[in-house]
Amino acid sequence: MKKIAAKAGMILALLVIGSKSIVTNAQAQGPTTATLNVMPLPAKVQISSGNLKIDEGFGVAFEGHREPRLERAGERFLVQMHRLTGIVVGTTPRDAAKATLVVSTDHESKPVQEIGEDEAYTLDVTASGAKIHAANPLGVMHGLQTFLQLVAITPDGFTVPAVHIEDVPRFPWRGLMIDVARHFAPVEVVKRNLDGMEAVKMNVFHWHLSENQGFRVESHKYPKLQQQGSDGQFYTQEEIRDVIGYARDRGIRVVPEFDMPGHSTAWFVGHPELASGSGPYQIERRWGVFDPAMDPTNEKTYKFLNELIAEMTKLFPDQFFHIGGDEVNGKEWDTNTKIQSYMKAHGIKNNEALQAYFSQRVQELVVKHGKTPVGWDEILVPGVPKTIVIQSWRGAESLAAAAKQGYRGILSNGYYLDLGWSAARHYAIDPLGGAAASLTPEQQKQVLGGESCMWSEYVNAENIDSRIWPRNAAIAERLWSPKEVTDVHSMYERMASEAQRLEWLGLTHGTYQRNLLQRIAGAATPAELTALRTLTKALEPVKDYAREKMAAIEPTSQTSLNRVVDAVALESQTSRRFSEGVDEYLSTSCKDSARAAELRAQLALWAGNDAKLQPLAQRSALVQEAAPASAALSQAAAVAIAALDKVMQGAPLTDDQKKQQIDALNAAEQQAHKSQLTLPALAAFQKLIEAASNGGACAK
Amino acid sequence: MKKIAAKAGMILALLVIGSKSIVTNAQAQGPTTATLNVMPLPAKVQISSGNLKIDEGFGVAFEGHREPRLERAGERFLVQMHRLTGIVVGTTPRDAAKATLVVSTDHESKPVQEIGEDEAYTLDVTASGAKIHAANPLGVMHGLQTFLQLVAITPDGFTVPAVHIEDVPRFPWRGLMIDVARHFAPVEVVKRNLDGMEAVKMNVFHWHLSENQGFRVESHKYPKLQQQGSDGQFYTQEEIRDVIGYARDRGIRVVPEFDMPGHSTAWFVGHPELASGSGPYQIERRWGVFDPAMDPTNEKTYKFLNELIAEMTKLFPDQFFHIGGDEVNGKEWDTNTKIQSYMKAHGIKNNEALQAYFSQRVQELVVKHGKTPVGWDEILVPGVPKTIVIQSWRGAESLAAAAKQGYRGILSNGYYLDLGWSAARHYAIDPLGGAAASLTPEQQKQVLGGESCMWSEYVNAENIDSRIWPRNAAIAERLWSPKEVTDVHSMYERMASEAQRLEWLGLTHGTYQRNLLQRIAGAATPAELTALRTLTKALEPVKDYAREKMAAIEPTSQTSLNRVVDAVALESQTSRRFSEGVDEYLSTSCKDSARAAELRAQLALWAGNDAKLQPLAQRSALVQEAAPASAALSQAAAVAIAALDKVMQGAPLTDDQKKQQIDALNAAEQQAHKSQLTLPALAAFQKLIEAASNGGACAK
Repeated sequence: MKKIAAKAGMILALLVIGSKSIVTNAQAQGPTTATLNVMPLPAKVQISSGNLKIDEGFGVAFEGHREPRLERAGERFLVQMHRLTGIVVGTTPRDAAKATLVVSTDHESKPVQEIGEDEAYTLDVTASGAKIHAANPLGVMHGLQTFLQLVAITPDGFTVPAVHIEDVPRFPWRGLMIDVARHFAPVEVVKRNLDGMEAVKMNVFHWHLSENQGFRVESHKYPKLQQQGSDGQFYTQEEIRDVIGYARDRGIRVVPEFDMPGHSTAWFVGHPELASGSGPYQIERRWGVFDPAMDPTNEKTYKFLNELIAEMTKLFPDQFFHIGGDEVNGKEWDTNTKIQSYMKAHGIKNNEALQAYFSQRVQELVVKHGKTPVGWDEILVPGVPKTIVIQSWRGAESLAAAAKQGYRGILSNGYYLDLGWSAARHYAIDPLGGAAASLTPEQQKQVLGGESCMWSEYVNAENIDSRIWPRNAAIAERLWSPKEVTDVHSMYERMASEAQRLEWLGLTHGTYQRNLLQRIAGAATPAELTALRTLTKALEPVKDYAREKMAAIEPTSQTSLNRVVDAVALESQTSRRFSEGVDEYLSTSCKDSARAAELRAQLALWAGNDAKLQPLAQRSALVQEAAPASAALSQAAAVAIAALDKVMQGAPLTDDQKKQQIDALNAAEQQAHKSQLTLPALAAFQKLIEAASNGGACAK
Repeated sequence: MKKIAAKAGMILALLVIGSKSIVTNAQAQGPTTATLNVMPLPAKVQISSGNLKIDEGFGVAFEGHREPRLERAGERFLVQMHRLTGIVVGTTPRDAAKATLVVSTDHESKPVQEIGEDEAYTLDVTASGAKIHAANPLGVMHGLQTFLQLVAITPDGFTVPAVHIEDVPRFPWRGLMIDVARHFAPVEVVKRNLDGMEAVKMNVFHWHLSENQGFRVESHKYPKLQQQGSDGQFYTQEEIRDVIGYARDRGIRVVPEFDMPGHSTAWFVGHPELASGSGPYQIERRWGVFDPAMDPTNEKTYKFLNELIAEMTKLFPDQFFHIGGDEVNGKEWDTNTKIQSYMKAHGIKNNEALQAYFSQRVQELVVKHGKTPVGWDEILVPGVPKTIVIQSWRGAESLAAAAKQGYRGILSNGYYLDLGWSAARHYAIDPLGGAAASLTPEQQKQVLGGESCMWSEYVNAENIDSRIWPRNAAIAERLWSPKEVTDVHSMYERMASEAQRLEWLGLTHGTYQRNLLQRIAGAATPAELTALRTLTKALEPVKDYAREKMAAIEPTSQTSLNRVVDAVALESQTSRRFSEGVDEYLSTSCKDSARAAELRAQLALWAGNDAKLQPLAQRSALVQEAAPASAALSQAAAVAIAALDKVMQGAPLTDDQKKQQIDALNAAEQQAHKSQLTLPALAAFQKLIEAASNGGACAK
């Protein structure tokens, strides 16, 4: 999953100013669509007048094609309706004559869900009832989720607005990858995230099952894989089948990944004979790219993999089978004389060629067992069959180049959830943007969609939901909605609403953060707890791969994730709203005094917060750890107040004063880094300083 | 469960003043015990200096007697330790040499847990390690929970204070009854409440399984009971066994209750032949006491019950078997000529005697199948065998009278969680208080303990946790800790801490309230949501059985529980703290001006809150419903401000002014009742008015 390369290609923005890439010039939505609280936004919406009332008489019925999966979808829908409204709505579908919502399905979908199946649906709501129509159950499930999103509390109780929706996804591959290998994710965690995927119409769960740190699936053929390679944390085959069924019920395909020939230390604990080194091997506890790699020159490796792939392709019904293929550093190959001899004997010039040889052999095994291989960019080498699918961590350029050659691809570059980017930044990335925009329509079809990726170095069962959600909903919208849907403000409003709905469906992103703060605070007074909340709502963890570099002790899989940096949201909505407020204030040429007062009140709250937090920091080591960030926030806010006051007074800052203030902001950011935290509002603070400076936008 | 009788014996306090029964003169705790954050407080505590650090090296080991249940307790302990600290502490017990906490167990406990088994333990913590010693696994589990409660975040990270604890329960029967019949409680709800019981050392789960509204357990012998009497909401026998095993793992006995001969409409849907009326019967949807009752004069009734009791006594291993026996209104008996003839023929004088006859026959069946009958007060009639156990909803007088006659009893009067009493009010009730205080020591032993009761008219899977917790912890302490432990302030402080810990163990009382408020609020602005929180934190649902009387439409099992009255806590901690503040202020002869300023700030927040909430009330029908209570709070707070200002200014209120102000408070309370809500701070408001009045405590 290419951490090293990503690191090399990315400049760590220590100076925060300008590092936020909020999309400010996004194309505005048509007013009818934008007001509809649905995420992802549907392809076509017509709003009528009137509302359908949801009350204790509400019921759902199925017409046309029937199957148990639809019945279960109906029951799940009713449970979700009950959760979202608290209304006693019954638990089973009923006769159409007595139903408020009638669902009509033309025919069944494929026995094993396929890419490109028809997922379209129409939804009609009037004051007297509602209808969903779809070709097959996949569209039905999407339509039911849209209906649930439309339910709102109004002066008439819970209602759904009268509306006509025709909806169809833009891309057929809309995935979420979860790395369950670096930190294990129990079945319940996987399931609630599948619920979240269904809610936002994602349809591929990419299950990253093996890594240096763990082999997470039971093999009957080679039980030492999980017995010695997982610390007992793996999925039984029964659990795997259960999850696959759970996913199918929600219109979601499950693509397993077995990462080879690198990222595979955990395999070698039980099977050192697969490795290129001499062993013995232990489960890796550290993060990064490591030397162990499979031996591509040993026929026994392929014999083993043939058996394993035979077993796993039977277990996982999806047509696609992911073989990883990323980040081999080649060191074990370089030092293995047998491998070096083999390379010479067979004219294999370098490690890249050796990996290509391995990849080709493994792909042949996958094809032999009836599946289509998927792999990271590295598997795309000259001569590889056109049937493979490339998952691109390298970016749209790479994807476009592949598409021109006739290869199908999915984009993950720009969708790495662990990097802590804002939802807007992910949202701005289009699988058909950049180099892909100039592809022919036929070539563009080769771009199947994208996948968000949840790599799990700093993610465990407690906080994984808060690292995926709600930002993943923005990526889901990018992959489902028409290309023109780019209004960031609307996206954030709907994402906030969806974040709450997802909690009702069982996800824990909000709950988790509240509980973790309480744990950090211990026996805090209400005032101290408020101060801690004020602080943490203003912070974000440092971005990209900065955290590992800042840690005093190298983090491992045994590192506790119980600190402030683990508790704060990856995107601070408070800071985002403050920044929006600054932009709006500046856009009025600093004339909106009510707005200025609001901004000043927020800044004053921040400026005075550190003093309020201090008593608690003296009592809790976990609060104390964030004390530098707390001081930094208060100091930076004081600087911003001074700048704002200058703007309001019309007394420009001198160049020296400006420089001092910007230096102070940079110092504050550096200080926050001591807590592995960043202050996302600093860019807005700098705007205030710029505005206040001699010749600044609002200086008089 | 005697709603009618309870209603008759209780005067609805429409005038709130004086209706709060906070224990203000509670005996103070010794300082060492009171500072220990453990609930229930242990029997004996000695605090030393130093702390034991909890870090990634923490481990637990078992010595002496070993069994799988102890291993599981150790694993559960480690999971809970991880949740409470976030520290990666491993998942399995280890060798004593490597363990931080060594647990030593002398011998096994009884195969089926018995009343009066040794539950004592000792816990020793030093800076270098900790030891728990107990005679059997029951004490071990209590000791582990105490250890977890002692874990706190400090300047040194998570630590446990050095301490020596010798702990033993005061009563052997410390129960929680959950009525899963009026509203069904899924297995997961039962399990998480068993976790809560373990946390506060309760040891009896009384499972109220049958009612007019449902028969909730699978019978193989008479499957129509659950098939026609439960709307499909029942526990399979496999689930029952699973719950019993889960409870046993936590040192909790499971006592089933099959309520007879009344409260049994749901039985008659499938088996009308058991009833005294002519049928047919439907599952009852309303609340209250209804006419249907079993026919005590029909031998077939006893034949049926013999078979059912045979089946159920096999399913439930506990020695005790609860046969209900409460609240028969006798109407079906009065109008059944066959029953009337039988009574004449057998010299049965009245319905009470008929019920006694039925009760005696059923008790014989229970004894025949090897169990000890338990029943509500009504089963105690002259001549009934001394082996039965009386569960008293009538009160300590009734229990004392029974004890004098040699009957064992458990107290539930005063522990009805559904009545919405404060924790302090429950806490003040002692099973050996009142009439029982004058019992001889030998007679006092007949009082086995008590049970809190969660009747479920207004309780479903969503809000049940918030109706049981955290107040149930106060009852648990009353039943475990020494009689002298009565410091209410300490109780509330420790209960607040325990409330948070219970959330980490999986209970949802806090989460639920936040989520439900969000649901009620819909698309609220942050300011509106804050206003809704401010309002709801100041309110409580009306007490006792007032809610049913105030409902515009008669509530049933089909009524949605999604309103403000369902969302607010049963005890407002904000109001309680405000009231404490008023008491403290008055105790300084109104001289503490800082305190006055705090009180005034809270009052000002309340006084201004209604205006802030209004926009949201216009948009959400569920907020609108609470608008009268919102207006009432703001109006009453304005009155209290006026009184406080008078106190501060030393300008006494005239008698007329005082009367006007008290009238205004009463009017506010009446207005809040329109939303089925009450304003618990009004008593404190009245104290301010009294203090401000001519001749009042602080008037000058």
